[in-house]
Amino acid sequence: MIEKIDLISNRLKELIPKDNNYQKKLFEAANYSLLSPAKRLRPLLVLTTLEAFKKDIKIGIDPALSIELIHTYSLIHDDLPCMDDDDFRRGKPSLHKAYPEWLAILTGDYLLTYAFEIITKANKITDKQKVDLIQSLTKYSGGFGLIAGQVTDLSFEGKKIDFEKLKFMHLNKTAALFIAAVEFGCILANAEQDIKLKFIEFAKSFGLAFQIFDDISDTEDKKSSDIKKDKATAVTILGLKEAKKLASDLQEKGLEILKKLPLDTNDLEKLILKIS
Amino acid sequence: MIEKIDLISNRLKELIPKDNNYQKKLFEAANYSLLSPAKRLRPLLVLTTLEAFKKDIKIGIDPALSIELIHTYSLIHDDLPCMDDDDFRRGKPSLHKAYPEWLAILTGDYLLTYAFEIITKANKITDKQKVDLIQSLTKYSGGFGLIAGQVTDLSFEGKKIDFEKLKFMHLNKTAALFIAAVEFGCILANAEQDIKLKFIEFAKSFGLAFQIFDDISDTEDKKSSDIKKDKATAVTILGLKEAKKLASDLQEKGLEILKKLPLDTNDLEKLILKIS
Repeated sequence: MIEKIDLISNRLKELIPKDNNYQKKLFEAANYSLLSPAKRLRPLLVLTTLEAFKKDIKIGIDPALSIELIHTYSLIHDDLPCMDDDDFRRGKPSLHKAYPEWLAILTGDYLLTYAFEIITKANKITDKQKVDLIQSLTKYSGGFGLIAGQVTDLSFEGKKIDFEKLKFMHLNKTAALFIAAVEFGCILANAEQDIKLKFIEFAKSFGLAFQIFDDISDTEDKKSSDIKKDKATAVTILGLKEAKKLASDLQEKGLEILKKLPLDTNDLEKLILKIS
Repeated sequence: MIEKIDLISNRLKELIPKDNNYQKKLFEAANYSLLSPAKRLRPLLVLTTLEAFKKDIKIGIDPALSIELIHTYSLIHDDLPCMDDDDFRRGKPSLHKAYPEWLAILTGDYLLTYAFEIITKANKITDKQKVDLIQSLTKYSGGFGLIAGQVTDLSFEGKKIDFEKLKFMHLNKTAALFIAAVEFGCILANAEQDIKLKFIEFAKSFGLAFQIFDDISDTEDKKSSDIKKDKATAVTILGLKEAKKLASDLQEKGLEILKKLPLDTNDLEKLILKIS
């Protein structure tokens, strides 16, 4: 696992261009958000999936980072005053607090655009794989994925919602990029369709479990902006005890799917166990 | 020309999904901006370039619209209160005036993401062409293109700038998508590299001329938000007479490049003549 995290951290540091002109601040702002300490769960999931097929993980590094770029852009935009209005992110002032708000929005746009660029330039993969990766990323980060999740989240704010609605939101806002991550691994490994479908089921459970564990830890720490703003979470809808049971059940379901795969899923098991 | 405009308008109307769930407002907002009356100069430039090679323009329609999606997202984000703070766009309230600001930002993000999605799904073109189109679009709309232009524009606001800086801004903020448009035509027509380079020179002149004619018309109408905000334009830097001469010279240069091409450039000539 350490080897994969190092690969991700090292490549991330060299991703944003250094030579530039009047847009110097843009690249500086991009690195401010991108290089903040983070778990890198989504790119790790790409590489760990690829590794389960015993493939060279190096072919997956730039595609994996494209998902981290999308994740980072979405955090920058989510933090904006007219959205979640969060002043802090990853232990530092959020981007629109450290830089002008207009530059934060444009940095998000830049990271979103750059995510697709680095896939087109990735080494040692075919054009068909590049097209499949980009299509997968647009699917899970677009109007039926990440953005649908964020629209739902903000539409629901201040409203009483049921668990079905919450699940729709979390599946899109959180699980969607986990699904993209395993699909990336499968595309890069040329996996069969039935294996890919099992990975998608695994990632759904993983993503939902991750979000619920996160909400539980926020409730116990009393520090999240979601709690400040009275946002619905699994904890507020189901209660703490039920939420904990659900998160563990989802984690267990993810593990069961892995165990039935004809692959070396050792590190994937470690990854889903780390989130509780 | 009418045939191409109709093709663009008709396909635009069916581009945004209708079946949806909680993200219904997102798709409604996307159509609000996308279907407002507009000249569609960038997609027209893709199809007209393709036609100069005597290719079936239908293979270019979705790629052409992807550039219109990028153009539309950039207008939505540019109009935001923390950027140009424009209350009107294409004769209607701007998107953040008609819908909540958070939805306007997310609609921009959605159109940006969707631009790449429709290229991956385009019919009758190869995977190599799709990858080349996406790489071209990220290049001209990213941190060395459209976004560089917008960063420069906002960084320069309220400052005295010279013509070189203004040119850098216009080349990125305006000409970049014109260049993408002709490059799209060339990729779709499998054009030779030397022809593509001539098209890029043509599009630079076209884009710059278009921006300067636009600034001239804004000065004469006294209605643009750029004038309200005392933004530098070719007119404020060079004076009205010199600006008019420069725009005409650029238009003339574009026409000369076209005339030397071994292609049927009749409609391309009409297109660059329409902007004065």
